[in-house]
Amino acid sequence: MTKEHDLINRYFAPLCSKPNEAPAFGLLDDTALLQPAKGKEVLVTMDTLVADVHFFANDPAKAIARKALAVNVSDIIAKGGLPHSYLLSLALPKGVSSDWLEAFSSGLSEAQKLYDCELIGGDTVATSGPLVISITLLGEVEKGKMVRRMGARPGDQIYVSGTIGDAALGLLLRLADDRMTRIDFAKAHQDFLLDSYLHPRPILKLAPLWAQYTSAAMDISDGLAGDFAKLCAVSKVGGVIEAAKVPLSDAATSALAQSPGLRETVLTGGDDYQVLATIPADNADEFEKNARNATRIGEILSLEKGVAILDANGIPLDLPHGAFDHFSK
Amino acid sequence: MTKEHDLINRYFAPLCSKPNEAPAFGLLDDTALLQPAKGKEVLVTMDTLVADVHFFANDPAKAIARKALAVNVSDIIAKGGLPHSYLLSLALPKGVSSDWLEAFSSGLSEAQKLYDCELIGGDTVATSGPLVISITLLGEVEKGKMVRRMGARPGDQIYVSGTIGDAALGLLLRLADDRMTRIDFAKAHQDFLLDSYLHPRPILKLAPLWAQYTSAAMDISDGLAGDFAKLCAVSKVGGVIEAAKVPLSDAATSALAQSPGLRETVLTGGDDYQVLATIPADNADEFEKNARNATRIGEILSLEKGVAILDANGIPLDLPHGAFDHFSK
Repeated sequence: MTKEHDLINRYFAPLCSKPNEAPAFGLLDDTALLQPAKGKEVLVTMDTLVADVHFFANDPAKAIARKALAVNVSDIIAKGGLPHSYLLSLALPKGVSSDWLEAFSSGLSEAQKLYDCELIGGDTVATSGPLVISITLLGEVEKGKMVRRMGARPGDQIYVSGTIGDAALGLLLRLADDRMTRIDFAKAHQDFLLDSYLHPRPILKLAPLWAQYTSAAMDISDGLAGDFAKLCAVSKVGGVIEAAKVPLSDAATSALAQSPGLRETVLTGGDDYQVLATIPADNADEFEKNARNATRIGEILSLEKGVAILDANGIPLDLPHGAFDHFSK
Repeated sequence: MTKEHDLINRYFAPLCSKPNEAPAFGLLDDTALLQPAKGKEVLVTMDTLVADVHFFANDPAKAIARKALAVNVSDIIAKGGLPHSYLLSLALPKGVSSDWLEAFSSGLSEAQKLYDCELIGGDTVATSGPLVISITLLGEVEKGKMVRRMGARPGDQIYVSGTIGDAALGLLLRLADDRMTRIDFAKAHQDFLLDSYLHPRPILKLAPLWAQYTSAAMDISDGLAGDFAKLCAVSKVGGVIEAAKVPLSDAATSALAQSPGLRETVLTGGDDYQVLATIPADNADEFEKNARNATRIGEILSLEKGVAILDANGIPLDLPHGAFDHFSK
């Protein structure tokens, strides 16, 4: 019939598991049907990535696809939920090749397996500008268990998942920033950081633990320092993070050992897509027993105490760049 | 904090009805929570509009906002559901003014009232290209009552809502196409057609009737002829529409009287955002008693009979342009 119809049939309909059943009905209806499981509620989030703002237009199409899904997955995990299904909007510049679309679709297919969700709808349009990818991700959470940003209380312990700063260092490396290029670096460490920028690694397994134990949580997309300030502002509390406790990969540790000034990049750079969470002190031990890949990095204080990241001597770091904000570029 | 945060606070958070409750939590969580009412299921659809593809960049911001929501509303109505809430992704070109954003936000506010739904999330990013607006609309439908495209059977009667072709004629007028400019036209008719292009008019009140009576339905966004062919293809049936029965506004009737060649524009032009539905013959009388703004225009036949739109003499019209496809522009 039409070109859009062909595109959908060729690249996107194969991403639905059941061609003639809910939720997606093989993408034939322009509308999907959600039937939440008993005792579950539906989470929904939407993130948009623009070429040469949120990724490089010449990044591998597979990596772009996976990132577009991953940045949404991290929002759902941070709310204590697990991904269920997603809608994809693609505004395609002229001249996108079928090879690119093939790779993009195959990247989505791999990401779906990784994050246990499937395509259920969307739209494909042409644009005279750069590639714009919007994904709306639907997730499921136990009834009443959605974790809010609001809810942190003085005395709560602060945790992050995974390691922090790898993507921001990977981006500097990608940009051949001389703070990175002058470092004597193991090839494996360089590859790890570059890959961290291309492939965010939200940790699905932690979602049920966030739902069970946390008083507040959010995903870290705009830098730990800025997002920590946002969580505290919404919860109307203060708090301190100890910089020395922020979990670093071996690659980031090696970079910071040689170039200590990169600490600011680690703490304020974006694209971590890990979770920042607060857990009441009474639950912290039990949480730590159950949680892998989560590290205690600080404590929530009362509002008057303000928000700070402390160095090894307990002195607040001066982080002039504050939060990373794609929009202000 | 950040520019994006300011934008959201100023223009978008006021569009949520309850600042600290589900579904939107005042847009503070980057994620919304849906709690479907008892006996309801959740419909979800996503449509993307690009400046100078789906609307003119210099259209009034209020009209652009309303159209972006309306094109999604028509999808939900066609599935027998009513709008509930939506997520908005805006990729904004450089130099968008606060006046424009103010008008856009106020257009959304009016459209929300018109379509009885509210903003619950989204994303705002910068782009070097044209404005790209994606809306994901969530709707509610009675359990088990979602209307599919698949399901039309031979003997079913074919209906459309509203009037057909007004937006396509309005677009020709907007483009100063000489088929329109040579017509001697009442000012009120011109205004009506221009307004039909700017402001789609999906009919909310019909949604429960579509849910109750139809065997298949879809919204008409790419032209009656092409969308009719799509519905028949998915349902694996044939069918005929009688061109003379297709409901026209007074303005369209006046245009066609003077310029009969415009009939092709009416039947194949896009942007109607009305509903095309099929109803088993036994239910047709009861449906017609209850339905305003719906017109019987034809009948579903067996697959072998093919798909046609017939002129007043029962001769199939030759519609060379077939379906309207934004993508092929």
